[in-house]
Amino acid sequence: MTKPKKAASLSFSKEVRDVVGRLIWECEEEQSVAPGSNNSVPRLDFVMAQENLSVVLHSQGDLRLENRPVPEPGPNEVLLQMHSVGICGSDVHYWQHGRIGDFVVTKPMVLGHEASGRVVKVGSAVKHLKAGDRVAIEPGVPREMDEFFKNGRYNLSPTIFFCATPPDDGNLCRYYKHSANFCYKLPDNVTFEEGALIEPLSVGIHACRRAGVSLGSTVFICGAGPIGLVCLLVAKAMGASKVVITDLFPERLTVAKELGADFQLTVKRGDGPQQLAKSVEDLLGAQPHITIECTGVESSIQSAIYATRQAVWWCWCLGFEMANVPLTAKAWPMAIAMLAPAWFALRDDQSQLTARPGERSPAIAHMYMGVSCPVRSRNMAAGMVFMWI
Amino acid sequence: MTKPKKAASLSFSKEVRDVVGRLIWECEEEQSVAPGSNNSVPRLDFVMAQENLSVVLHSQGDLRLENRPVPEPGPNEVLLQMHSVGICGSDVHYWQHGRIGDFVVTKPMVLGHEASGRVVKVGSAVKHLKAGDRVAIEPGVPREMDEFFKNGRYNLSPTIFFCATPPDDGNLCRYYKHSANFCYKLPDNVTFEEGALIEPLSVGIHACRRAGVSLGSTVFICGAGPIGLVCLLVAKAMGASKVVITDLFPERLTVAKELGADFQLTVKRGDGPQQLAKSVEDLLGAQPHITIECTGVESSIQSAIYATRQAVWWCWCLGFEMANVPLTAKAWPMAIAMLAPAWFALRDDQSQLTARPGERSPAIAHMYMGVSCPVRSRNMAAGMVFMWI
Amino acid sequence: MTKPKKAASLSFSKEVRDVVGRLIWECEEEQSVAPGSNNSVPRLDFVMAQENLSVVLHSQGDLRLENRPVPEPGPNEVLLQMHSVGICGSDVHYWQHGRIGDFVVTKPMVLGHEASGRVVKVGSAVKHLKAGDRVAIEPGVPREMDEFFKNGRYNLSPTIFFCATPPDDGNLCRYYKHSANFCYKLPDNVTFEEGALIEPLSVGIHACRRAGVSLGSTVFICGAGPIGLVCLLVAKAMGASKVVITDLFPERLTVAKELGADFQLTVKRGDGPQQLAKSVEDLLGAQPHITIECTGVESSIQSAIYATRQAVWWCWCLGFEMANVPLTAKAWPMAIAMLAPAWFALRDDQSQLTARPGERSPAIAHMYMGVSCPVRSRNMAAGMVFMWI
Amino acid sequence: MTKPKKAASLSFSKEVRDVVGRLIWECEEEQSVAPGSNNSVPRLDFVMAQENLSVVLHSQGDLRLENRPVPEPGPNEVLLQMHSVGICGSDVHYWQHGRIGDFVVTKPMVLGHEASGRVVKVGSAVKHLKAGDRVAIEPGVPREMDEFFKNGRYNLSPTIFFCATPPDDGNLCRYYKHSANFCYKLPDNVTFEEGALIEPLSVGIHACRRAGVSLGSTVFICGAGPIGLVCLLVAKAMGASKVVITDLFPERLTVAKELGADFQLTVKRGDGPQQLAKSVEDLLGAQPHITIECTGVESSIQSAIYATRQAVWWCWCLGFEMANVPLTAKAWPMAIAMLAPAWFALRDDQSQLTARPGERSPAIAHMYMGVSCPVRSRNMAAGMVFMWI
Repeated sequence: MTKPKKAASLSFSKEVRDVVGRLIWECEEEQSVAPGSNNSVPRLDFVMAQENLSVVLHSQGDLRLENRPVPEPGPNEVLLQMHSVGICGSDVHYWQHGRIGDFVVTKPMVLGHEASGRVVKVGSAVKHLKAGDRVAIEPGVPREMDEFFKNGRYNLSPTIFFCATPPDDGNLCRYYKHSANFCYKLPDNVTFEEGALIEPLSVGIHACRRAGVSLGSTVFICGAGPIGLVCLLVAKAMGASKVVITDLFPERLTVAKELGADFQLTVKRGDGPQQLAKSVEDLLGAQPHITIECTGVESSIQSAIYATRQAVWWCWCLGFEMANVPLTAKAWPMAIAMLAPAWFALRDDQSQLTARPGERSPAIAHMYMGVSCPVRSRNMAAGMVFMWI
Repeated sequence: MTKPKKAASLSFSKEVRDVVGRLIWECEEEQSVAPGSNNSVPRLDFVMAQENLSVVLHSQGDLRLENRPVPEPGPNEVLLQMHSVGICGSDVHYWQHGRIGDFVVTKPMVLGHEASGRVVKVGSAVKHLKAGDRVAIEPGVPREMDEFFKNGRYNLSPTIFFCATPPDDGNLCRYYKHSANFCYKLPDNVTFEEGALIEPLSVGIHACRRAGVSLGSTVFICGAGPIGLVCLLVAKAMGASKVVITDLFPERLTVAKELGADFQLTVKRGDGPQQLAKSVEDLLGAQPHITIECTGVESSIQSAIYATRQAVWWCWCLGFEMANVPLTAKAWPMAIAMLAPAWFALRDDQSQLTARPGERSPAIAHMYMGVSCPVRSRNMAAGMVFMWI
Repeated sequence: MTKPKKAASLSFSKEVRDVVGRLIWECEEEQSVAPGSNNSVPRLDFVMAQENLSVVLHSQGDLRLENRPVPEPGPNEVLLQMHSVGICGSDVHYWQHGRIGDFVVTKPMVLGHEASGRVVKVGSAVKHLKAGDRVAIEPGVPREMDEFFKNGRYNLSPTIFFCATPPDDGNLCRYYKHSANFCYKLPDNVTFEEGALIEPLSVGIHACRRAGVSLGSTVFICGAGPIGLVCLLVAKAMGASKVVITDLFPERLTVAKELGADFQLTVKRGDGPQQLAKSVEDLLGAQPHITIECTGVESSIQSAIYATRQAVWWCWCLGFEMANVPLTAKAWPMAIAMLAPAWFALRDDQSQLTARPGERSPAIAHMYMGVSCPVRSRNMAAGMVFMWI
Repeated sequence: MTKPKKAASLSFSKEVRDVVGRLIWECEEEQSVAPGSNNSVPRLDFVMAQENLSVVLHSQGDLRLENRPVPEPGPNEVLLQMHSVGICGSDVHYWQHGRIGDFVVTKPMVLGHEASGRVVKVGSAVKHLKAGDRVAIEPGVPREMDEFFKNGRYNLSPTIFFCATPPDDGNLCRYYKHSANFCYKLPDNVTFEEGALIEPLSVGIHACRRAGVSLGSTVFICGAGPIGLVCLLVAKAMGASKVVITDLFPERLTVAKELGADFQLTVKRGDGPQQLAKSVEDLLGAQPHITIECTGVESSIQSAIYATRQAVWWCWCLGFEMANVPLTAKAWPMAIAMLAPAWFALRDDQSQLTARPGERSPAIAHMYMGVSCPVRSRNMAAGMVFMWI
């Protein structure tokens, strides 16, 4: 195979995917060649002989497929053979613009932060993982035990390590080391692909939890991109009685409907915020309890303000030119629980998300497809709660 | 029809039900005679001519079916033609013992507080209801705008009116007046029977909400009586990933399984609390996040303490010799939303609670049957949160 | 005495005060003429003979001193002989502009909502008050028992009655009736003047409580107007360890220093928000835990955003062209407790707020003076919590 | 000096103190001999030459003063020259009984966990401390990054290291190493003695914070031992309007009065809980909002239940035969802030806790004396929140 040293001229919608697709395919292929069943330990000497192909962004538009050394895990780290890595809007944005807000690519950076893989080596102090374990990776790891960490809000720690956020390398590569405490073992019935999607799923969990979605909540979700869709899935799983979701594109709303949205509303550029708020109220029979804003577009934020009833509302701001706020840790075990068999399988039966028995791919696939499409989807630059007092 | 003036010699499990069943049946019959369809206003002159048969407890064991005057609603009240009234364990307990804790029957009291009915007359200041409306009745109505009320906790107001709690009359009668603000209009697809069951359902909502059940919670429910079962239903609807439920009686656990319990555990009198706690941990793979205690039995409370992980646990104490704590209001709109079509119908499909399309009777029926069976089920004498700090 | 029928030509800073001062003086005088000691019931026949002079705003700039009928209290109301009424920025704003946001003066409206008075007559259902009682008046009274009310957030009820907010009349008059449940008896050691100031004090309590000020909090308060000052007082009373306060006017900061501010920062128009945020951080040695924004000025709001540490911050927006959000009830008993003897007297000794033993006038006086000065002080148009998540 | 190898025969109230007092005195003396001012770094070669005298409990009643090797700090640790170590009731209890609940002394254990000292050596990865720094020591250090830790509740982590809780050694010795992240630098105006008392102070902060003490709260504190007293101090600092405190011993209540208690109530063994609850209500004019139970005595717990108003109450259980619940971390920075100059000095002026200007010893001394007196004071075996729902 000939590896392109520079991928900058690739167009996003096709060629990057080709590169990435090929990379993942290769990993798969090599794995399938490696002896050992799905759950057994890959032969380390075999895999170690492989190159550590990595998708590296050198600067705006300058994306390269490079071979990097296989890293050595520290005492509290694990070395992972990567399996699936989602391509997030932020990855694409760094590639196209070289920066998101104050985060500027000033030196080569490996992309990728929605990922799963298999443990191939564990650090000397690691007890809860062993080689062969399949894990999802939480991309943010606090560097300091500061007040945020001690208070259970390490996602807000100013010095946090975060994959593929300058200057920290991501994990769109073959071998990657990570803090063992931020690798979560996957249940047997959760695939690697689903494991990679736990990251965006946790965004929805965090948003819905902080917004206080609960049994009987009525929820207005602005935007049916990937984050809007995971918020929808989570809001319904938390017991929301009615969800209205909006988007400019009807095809996204079709997906939203399949995923359980009660009402879909196609908006047009130029729609007045107050008029849109009125439409939402008409659909629900009352103003929504909670609004989750997933577009970052000013007119949409204004609609959110007009639409939501006085007591509580919420705006999850997405946008390009603001500081990055990584996810909170607490969502991770929950996200995994949400995918675990006894529970999610039941949900599957319930919500018809699944094409075939034992599979939940369609819903997840939609999420996945969603994740890779929209340009301005997931660099949630600033998550905030707004609340009437 | 011959009305028994005294029903004290009736045995609980059969004859009281006969009386009550007959009473309800009669109401039904007369209603069916009355002109007008299900949703139209009954002819007031007709129904008013009927007697207001009421189930009145005079003292321990002295239950009578009496005719009482049809009350006149005040400015903020509505007069209701009662349709369905659940028989709660507390009703039975008052009848058998003449008291619950400090609440002593010292003068004749109408029983019944789990109820629905149809508005036949509205007070002069009532705007949101009209004659013909089908409503569920929240049995606790604050009498004073005290600090509890102003703080949204009127269920704790010491002077609250509460149906069928001495000295306040209940609504196991044909005509009953109630504060209009505490009557909730039923959606078309919620039956009167279901409307009567909103009261016990709201107990489960209140318990799960105060206990903090959320997406991914693992929950241990002690007792599969009616309150245990509604807690189970609500916990699953709030997104609990795994629920373990216990009981002395396997047949109750069978119902619990049908309603979605992930694990059932039959306990025997004399089982050690620590041993039981260990069994729960083994089933879940870890200690439960939350425990909801629905038996009031000391050994069960001890199990709850041993079982639950340190961070948060909860005990919903039920018992006889303690003060009555009515339900919080906030559960009511939520309980109704939970039964409303778009949402609950979906749930029905999901959870197989329903025998026939468009019907959700089996699950509700179980709840209903449950409600009328156990002697010590629902006089939740003291709801408390216990929490490790 | 000659009463001006039209006061529109009066300048704010002097003549309106003269009118108001005279009005209050007159009431005082008449009271002093009335037989009975400070705590006894005024002779109703005597006071009733007096005219009910009222400060009525007819339209922008058209302020009149009129005689209105003495109202008759309903069953749950009390008739009050007004004693002290603060002049809020919103009163002045309505007078000067005829509107605040969507609240437009379209018919004559009595001004005033920061008030105290003496009960002269009680409605038939009132039990907790009697003629002669000295009370502070909570100006917002919910009209409906809607979800906001049931949830303890009646201050957000869309249909709330609120004194001197179109179309609801205020209480800058001699006789005024009000819901008895929203009149709070004053302890003997709290004067009428202080009673009138409980309203702005409760703004500070509500803001600090919703912002989560607690023991050891570091707080940044933008603006040392009356609301900034009450926030300062309350933040210190809640245990804030360090408070930085800013203003354009050094003389306000001098008052703030007397009231306990740890650091004062004079800002200049045109100061950069980031630079100001840096100055705040330098003073505190770290970013503040909490920011309370009390100016409504855009550059100040931006400073608030830059200044506050990631975990929690708060912005209490004040401004003219937004919807009115009345205060929450829960602040009232707390505000009164804060002025009650055993506690506040201690505070007085502690904080040297008092000029003479047994008096706490200076601090209160500053607050009071503050209240009447600034044009854009208290129409807190939209209280919101902003919070990093 | 002759060091006793075995101290088991010493009586608590005198001789242990003599030993401990002597130990501390010796450290002091040696320090005073060591060159360098109070804030400079001790000459390491000099202090290292000293023996590491340690108070070691071998088994019930078998307390020895031994020389142990000076430990070597790991990469994230610091070596401390201990200065002040409080003697907690739990230290005494381990000595007298050899156990507290399930925590049994099965091998020699150094006592002491209320401590402060000076950094003499820092691990290779420590950045925020340097030799010479004066620090307070948080005695509980999580060993694992488990869910409790990630959620900000590491104090509940089942595997936590906790000084002087079997099998973990305490710091009643001359040289001790500790996690640098759990050592908090003392401000210049906080003495070592006060630094040692931050641990019990943080108990009061944690209790009051979890109980929700806030501006205007009325609080009932059962027990005026050291924990009752710190709860009192903290409750007043958080803005509690009235505090009632009880004890069997009038002399303790005298201290409580000096520290700001509004009402003191001497109880007698055998007083009925309901009668006591009534007395508390009479003193406050209403039931207390919050009760903090600091005795662990059954009748006192019952009084707490009867006394507290329905909405919220709290019981901080102390007792011997229950599991140990260490403190939450979040209290530490707050406790230090509470002792920091600008703020606490003001408090001092306010509350007359201080004998001489610039000194706050009396109050602290009382706390300190308190800490060393009562047998059953501070092994808060199980902190719990009880709350009416």
